[in-house]
Amino acid sequence: MLKELHITTGSRTEFVDITDKIRAVVKESGVKDGLCFVFVPHTTAAVTINESADPDVRKDILDFLNGRVPRDGSYKHIEGNSDAHIKSSALGAGLTVIVKEADLVLGTWQGIYFCEFDGSRERQVLVEVMSR
Amino acid sequence: MLKELHITTGSRTEFVDITDKIRAVVKESGVKDGLCFVFVPHTTAAVTINESADPDVRKDILDFLNGRVPRDGSYKHIEGNSDAHIKSSALGAGLTVIVKEADLVLGTWQGIYFCEFDGSRERQVLVEVMSR
Amino acid sequence: MLKELHITTGSRTEFVDITDKIRAVVKESGVKDGLCFVFVPHTTAAVTINESADPDVRKDILDFLNGRVPRDGSYKHIEGNSDAHIKSSALGAGLTVIVKEADLVLGTWQGIYFCEFDGSRERQVLVEVMSR
Repeated sequence: MLKELHITTGSRTEFVDITDKIRAVVKESGVKDGLCFVFVPHTTAAVTINESADPDVRKDILDFLNGRVPRDGSYKHIEGNSDAHIKSSALGAGLTVIVKEADLVLGTWQGIYFCEFDGSRERQVLVEVMSR
Repeated sequence: MLKELHITTGSRTEFVDITDKIRAVVKESGVKDGLCFVFVPHTTAAVTINESADPDVRKDILDFLNGRVPRDGSYKHIEGNSDAHIKSSALGAGLTVIVKEADLVLGTWQGIYFCEFDGSRERQVLVEVMSR
Repeated sequence: MLKELHITTGSRTEFVDITDKIRAVVKESGVKDGLCFVFVPHTTAAVTINESADPDVRKDILDFLNGRVPRDGSYKHIEGNSDAHIKSSALGAGLTVIVKEADLVLGTWQGIYFCEFDGSRERQVLVEVMSR
């Protein structure tokens, strides 16, 4: 099943926890065992898996990225968001999670994050669930 | 269907747009809905998705990588291409795109790039298309 | 088939070659053609594909990561392992390899590595093999 989710980001750079939304798509798909693929159809955003317990972890990752890939650099692209394109390729536009017993198989501390690098914006997340 | 593509790169580091080649494999596969997986069987190359409209974006990403992962560093590997191996793991050897109605599901600005980090060379790209 | 592997790491940061273990799971699965998905259910570890011939390559990648993402930085997360979380998202928690004739399709120099960034620990690796 292919599902399209809509999210609204509130800052230029931000990690939004979408674990529950992805889990709901898996339930809705009826797939018991297989793979769930999550994809952002944007070139200035990404998806990643990391700790969901302490919000300071996502802040540290975002601060690190913003520090190492500065918004104002000697870039050629004239739209002023080359840093966002670089961060998008660094983390990647898609990720896969195993599905077992109609649920995502994630570690205790893992959550799925939509990574906004050029917001705030209306964004899409595509989810495909494949049965084994 | 598993398909092997051949591409020739012309510089030591270069991003080559392979979107149309991947799209042709999807059409040829006969798969209507599912996933398309793209993989490079090389350790000094990668694949990534980013903007296909303005060629300055891929230049900015490549310049950034070349600046932050210098060719001449204090590396142990004696072949002189450790920077290429690092860049390969940073962007990744494989990526997945959703297939819908026998076509790739990509955002308006997204293209698929073969990332050469130790060319120029003859390179392979493997494409597997899985039906839902 | 979903399989759970257990590995023990011996250092804080370390790349462990798990290619043979993954290959064994593919054989055991009985899948002839399809995809093999490898996932770590941890937020301070990752998986990557890179050169398996010269062990200096993995050392160079690890040294580079440890140099650019220092353990002691101005992080908010109080557990002292924010660098490990950042490295986990940089390389990614999962990767996919094509399966052909009941074997992994890897390039001559490619191996699959479990990347430990906050060891030593007991770790898990999940492997799902999907038939085409």
